[in-house]
Amino acid sequence: MNLDLARELSIQNDTKIVLLVIDGLGGLPHRETGRTELESAYTTHLDLLAKASACGFTLPVAPGVAPGSGPGHLALFGYDPLKYAVGRGVLEAVGIDFDLQSQDVAARGNFCTLDDGGLVSDRRAGRISTELCAELVAELRKIRLDGAHLFVEPVREHRFVLVIRGDGLSDAVADTDPQAEGVPPLPARAISREGEATARLVSRFVEEAGRILADKAPANMLLLRGFAKRPEWPSMSEVFKLRPAAVAYYPMYRGLARLVGMQALPTGPGLEDSIATLRENWAHFDYVFIHYKYTDTAGEDRDFERKAAKLEEVDAAIPSLLALEPDVLMVTGDHSTPAVMGVHSWHPVPFMMRARWTRADECGAFNETALRKGSLGTFPAVDALPLAMAHAGRFRKYGA
Amino acid sequence: MNLDLARELSIQNDTKIVLLVIDGLGGLPHRETGRTELESAYTTHLDLLAKASACGFTLPVAPGVAPGSGPGHLALFGYDPLKYAVGRGVLEAVGIDFDLQSQDVAARGNFCTLDDGGLVSDRRAGRISTELCAELVAELRKIRLDGAHLFVEPVREHRFVLVIRGDGLSDAVADTDPQAEGVPPLPARAISREGEATARLVSRFVEEAGRILADKAPANMLLLRGFAKRPEWPSMSEVFKLRPAAVAYYPMYRGLARLVGMQALPTGPGLEDSIATLRENWAHFDYVFIHYKYTDTAGEDRDFERKAAKLEEVDAAIPSLLALEPDVLMVTGDHSTPAVMGVHSWHPVPFMMRARWTRADECGAFNETALRKGSLGTFPAVDALPLAMAHAGRFRKYGA
Repeated sequence: MNLDLARELSIQNDTKIVLLVIDGLGGLPHRETGRTELESAYTTHLDLLAKASACGFTLPVAPGVAPGSGPGHLALFGYDPLKYAVGRGVLEAVGIDFDLQSQDVAARGNFCTLDDGGLVSDRRAGRISTELCAELVAELRKIRLDGAHLFVEPVREHRFVLVIRGDGLSDAVADTDPQAEGVPPLPARAISREGEATARLVSRFVEEAGRILADKAPANMLLLRGFAKRPEWPSMSEVFKLRPAAVAYYPMYRGLARLVGMQALPTGPGLEDSIATLRENWAHFDYVFIHYKYTDTAGEDRDFERKAAKLEEVDAAIPSLLALEPDVLMVTGDHSTPAVMGVHSWHPVPFMMRARWTRADECGAFNETALRKGSLGTFPAVDALPLAMAHAGRFRKYGA
Repeated sequence: MNLDLARELSIQNDTKIVLLVIDGLGGLPHRETGRTELESAYTTHLDLLAKASACGFTLPVAPGVAPGSGPGHLALFGYDPLKYAVGRGVLEAVGIDFDLQSQDVAARGNFCTLDDGGLVSDRRAGRISTELCAELVAELRKIRLDGAHLFVEPVREHRFVLVIRGDGLSDAVADTDPQAEGVPPLPARAISREGEATARLVSRFVEEAGRILADKAPANMLLLRGFAKRPEWPSMSEVFKLRPAAVAYYPMYRGLARLVGMQALPTGPGLEDSIATLRENWAHFDYVFIHYKYTDTAGEDRDFERKAAKLEEVDAAIPSLLALEPDVLMVTGDHSTPAVMGVHSWHPVPFMMRARWTRADECGAFNETALRKGSLGTFPAVDALPLAMAHAGRFRKYGA
């Protein structure tokens, strides 16, 4: 559903909607057992919930498309990820809780190694330590540019974020990262006339940085990519008339939530921390997104057993979530991360929604096989929130 | 998926994708047995393949839409058939292996019968023989036009193709075929200013042809329709980074494949010929479309038993196809042609895809009933190639 229609239909009431995102939820069968992660885990509470829910699968972006975390979450927040795209620089900046302002231009940075001929010999500078990264960033912060403020923030290993703040800046600047080795870094070129002043600032920064890093091999240069400004999107409160909050421990998910106007609540690393945070703030919000990360991490590590164990951890927290009696509870993932693949995949993602007016399904359990009997079938993830709004009585009738 | 997104996501690798199109595949139950053609045929290999595949149904164009061969195939090639429409003239020209060039304007021609009053009394001139058609065409080739080359090519019975080649020609010319009898042929009118010069050439041709055909009753006149230029579409190699080939015996399917940039490989009439051609060319291509025609012909002839027998012929060829070990194998049709209807129909088309990362289905056989348990459900045919690309590891992740 597009946001204009959602805005037209949305009304306020006193219901509560909860979205639990189990990151990288969907899986594939284990070669030996023939069972997926969800089918291998003991998930009594999730299975009971499935029996009382409308079930199916979400398609995060489009058939065959494996989404990054950005598109995967934006779709669940009701924002078409093909229309609401986040630039890499912005995602990196919000991903470290950087308070990005509307005039800022952000880029993802890599420390890299140049050989004697000035060609990139390692795009990641041998994955230097996070400590060294922080030291080098401290040096880069000494660079001064006319008419603009610079922020350089370490991320992890060879990664950092560059933010330029000033009036009239543009993100129409091409990557200096050639995305290949054996070639020189690219110059910071403007992609359009608007980008010219910003490209000059970036060139100055790169030049100064080159001088500072010259004797710091393997991190003797840097590469920048994904220049982007914070998008100005309609907020969930304006469109859906919700008071939305995010309970996420990892900065990237808090950042994504803030891009659509959610309040990001401080919380601890475990799901019990998240539910405690939810409980404490229950009165103040009517939409809460809870993020659980560790299933995805296990999937990316190709650790089938750990992913199954993490699913059991989620399962154990379900009763305390239900005790809050949300009017609509959605349990799904932002994408699949089958442990047998070890990467984000395009496979549709298990989904269930418990609410007062859901049709009874015949799914006896919450897994990739059982959910095929679900009444929701495979549907675009961007439609999950509209469905929840309807079930919460928050959509008025369309037309007379 | 639109081609811009496909272009953004596609990467090269050394996998092989095979698409086997069983023309007119889908069917309806036989009045007496209650079983469809696929359910009536003995298709051991297809059934085994279904057990190892992700299954479902494709929707060629839209719900309720029975597609012609053009849209049905273009969708499977990844091109939205509502956006990438082929003019009738072009389809006829490529359908006889005519080497249509970008400046050419092509039209479908019919020999017809005019009565003494100059009204169309038979739009098909009593379906004259193909031999007579060729003789009349030889006469028409004597017509000369200023500033343009004429090509007239016989097709079958009363059908021929007219191609006008010259600089600055346009296809903005209305049909001279009134699509009705008891009325006169229509004049060749321009639809817009660009079409004026071409309309004059067409009028001249029709006038001369009228003189030549005057004493050739029942074929004493001709009707033209579907003036069209060869579309300039992005190629599959540019968009999907594939080296694509077509193994099709019938010219129309080779022509359709060439419109999206496939190389059309010469082959024989049988499926074993096709697979031999595939085998010989295996190293040179990474996407191959194989076309099998005879199921559709049997369906259009309302010959239920022959359609079932032709399905068994396909079934027998499956092992030699599998022996090539394609990374992704899709088996489907371009549309349904239920023998009980005898025409192309709108019914979704059986589909299965075998690849390394498909989710296990519970389909025990390849037919309209069993496939309903498939994990893919009913999905747009235009999404089949994107799905195959994902399964072949040829799509990068979308967004960070």
